Amino acid sequence: MAQETQFRIWPEELKEFCTRVFVALGVPERDAYITADVLVAADLRGVDSHGVARLKRYVDGIRTGMMRVDAKPRVVHETPTTATIDADGGLGQPPSYRAMEMAIAKAEKLGAGFVAVRNSNHYGIAGYYAMMALDKDMIGISTTNADVLVVPTFGRNAMFGTNPIAVAAPAGKERPFVLDMATSVVPRGKLEVYDRLGKPMPDGWATDETGVGTTDATRVLRNFATRAGGGLLPLGGEGELHSGHKGYGLALLVDILSAVLPGAAYADLVYPKTPDGKPLPANIGHFFGALRIDGFRPVHEFKADMDELITRIKNSPKAQGADRIYIHGEKEFEKQAEREANGIPLHEKVVATLRQIAVELNVPFSG
Amino acid sequence: MAQETQFRIWPEELKEFCTRVFVALGVPERDAYITADVLVAADLRGVDSHGVARLKRYVDGIRTGMMRVDAKPRVVHETPTTATIDADGGLGQPPSYRAMEMAIAKAEKLGAGFVAVRNSNHYGIAGYYAMMALDKDMIGISTTNADVLVVPTFGRNAMFGTNPIAVAAPAGKERPFVLDMATSVVPRGKLEVYDRLGKPMPDGWATDETGVGTTDATRVLRNFATRAGGGLLPLGGEGELHSGHKGYGLALLVDILSAVLPGAAYADLVYPKTPDGKPLPANIGHFFGALRIDGFRPVHEFKADMDELITRIKNSPKAQGADRIYIHGEKEFEKQAEREANGIPLHEKVVATLRQIAVELNVPFSG
Repeated sequence: MAQETQFRIWPEELKEFCTRVFVALGVPERDAYITADVLVAADLRGVDSHGVARLKRYVDGIRTGMMRVDAKPRVVHETPTTATIDADGGLGQPPSYRAMEMAIAKAEKLGAGFVAVRNSNHYGIAGYYAMMALDKDMIGISTTNADVLVVPTFGRNAMFGTNPIAVAAPAGKERPFVLDMATSVVPRGKLEVYDRLGKPMPDGWATDETGVGTTDATRVLRNFATRAGGGLLPLGGEGELHSGHKGYGLALLVDILSAVLPGAAYADLVYPKTPDGKPLPANIGHFFGALRIDGFRPVHEFKADMDELITRIKNSPKAQGADRIYIHGEKEFEKQAEREANGIPLHEKVVATLRQIAVELNVPFSG
Repeated sequence: MAQETQFRIWPEELKEFCTRVFVALGVPERDAYITADVLVAADLRGVDSHGVARLKRYVDGIRTGMMRVDAKPRVVHETPTTATIDADGGLGQPPSYRAMEMAIAKAEKLGAGFVAVRNSNHYGIAGYYAMMALDKDMIGISTTNADVLVVPTFGRNAMFGTNPIAVAAPAGKERPFVLDMATSVVPRGKLEVYDRLGKPMPDGWATDETGVGTTDATRVLRNFATRAGGGLLPLGGEGELHSGHKGYGLALLVDILSAVLPGAAYADLVYPKTPDGKPLPANIGHFFGALRIDGFRPVHEFKADMDELITRIKNSPKAQGADRIYIHGEKEFEKQAEREANGIPLHEKVVATLRQIAVELNVPFSG
């Protein structure tokens, strides 16, 4: 991304714009705000692939009826510590936000709360929901299944999404631990970079249509488009030599928690289409959890140990050639501080897309 | 392991022997039985490194006072869905078994239960405890921290154990999903194989004393002994190219859940020694969880979808050169069936060690 003449926009302004876009499309105001907040949180934290660069896909999803603006999410099953929400094919963010709120409320009462969501759509960054638990002195959990890109170990075809796992735990003086990881080696976006550059990508990221490792990113992306086979490798890479079966196991675990548990579509059954190729609601699922820290020990003790654990790791000797050890979430918190101070940089192509959406929906946009 | 003339022993016989060994050392009968059951379960499932090959280490641990036979584990904190147990420096298996029983009992009442354990010792295979939830139609979770072997991304020194994560979920006609994975690329035992063979090990498994990747297994093992630096790499390998920071994040997550949450030792503070080098109780910690499936949807629906998910993945096309896709736990269930039918094969060195223990403690052994 070119830095020198880059367009920057204030987070609140971008959030306001996205909210108005969703409202113009018929999304209820509160749902529009939540969805905008999740999108802009991704941009703030530097996860640009999940921010407003994706707005057009949401707009298209709503226009094609894949994401229903009149969705009426409802709780279909509930116990004191658990619940399942049917999202009714609407946007993924609003029912996810409420599911995490519910998990937290249940944990406030009884120590632990878990809520799964079915019949949903893309919910943005997994970490957003896990982090909602931090202020409550809880550990937050969030997982989701997703569009099919990842092959199981020894399999030829993609059977999983990048199926992220996010877990957030508070610290005291230190920043919280926020793990937010796809269970594939890399996301699809990394292949797109090598495709644009026309350069071979590293070994161990993806397989070709025969299911064998390749460094040809263009080929893998073309195979995605034609469903010819192959895909991203699970964390640990190809076969079992570097334990690719572990990443595959984590992807499968996420499918079980996010999809089988609430009764959503799983494996490659997500994002179905009509016989004539029209996209149907994705029917993906999510899983959210909250666990009270004071259910195990006093919060101040936990936080003091978290601080000491974090500084102990960060201050430990560095590998030759390295000058810093990071804690998970740290890079994103630093990015957020920089972008809150200077605005969110947007790629010119993204700005052009937002401008077009603004014109089409008659929503003001400063870009 | 040589197959042709290998010694085999029936599981019940081996369990009886181990129980008697622990009783001879002063462990209460019921605790001795639980510990023996966890050890033999590892041998049955083919995780030989965690079975009776390890018995001598337990015997030594008890003799040196590192594992106290007079430990009085007690619940130090409890809520309706959570608890913390102080294991009082005894064997790890008995309080772990009771912690998982407690988590299950809490889940039976309220839908979810989580119990963490501090001041504990090596607890055997993580999967054993997660699998205790299966018969109850629950999802079971088990994690533990462990002796320090794994480096953080960009770090020179080992700061974590292989910190396994185990999650078990029941199916219907199919075998359950049992993920039981170290969060390192490989266990130490794999390096020992290359050390014995005197051959270079694969890239991406471990780092040398400067924190840089090496294929010299002997050097890495020597560095462990002298605490010279380096160690096993987290799942995903060296640096961030193949997302080693994700494996590092999982290892850190396990330390937070298993150690910081109950107040055990974390990072490289586990397995402390006196100033004159005498081992002290390890003070490692564990984390156990149980989640009722019918807190989310009817069990028969969940199991039907699990069956369909499992067969769908297994029946999907295979990568060129592969003929089978495995579900996690499948290899171990097959191994268990074979060993239940034919007995557990033991390496001659292991048999010799057991024989020596038998003589020393005056416990009958058929080997």
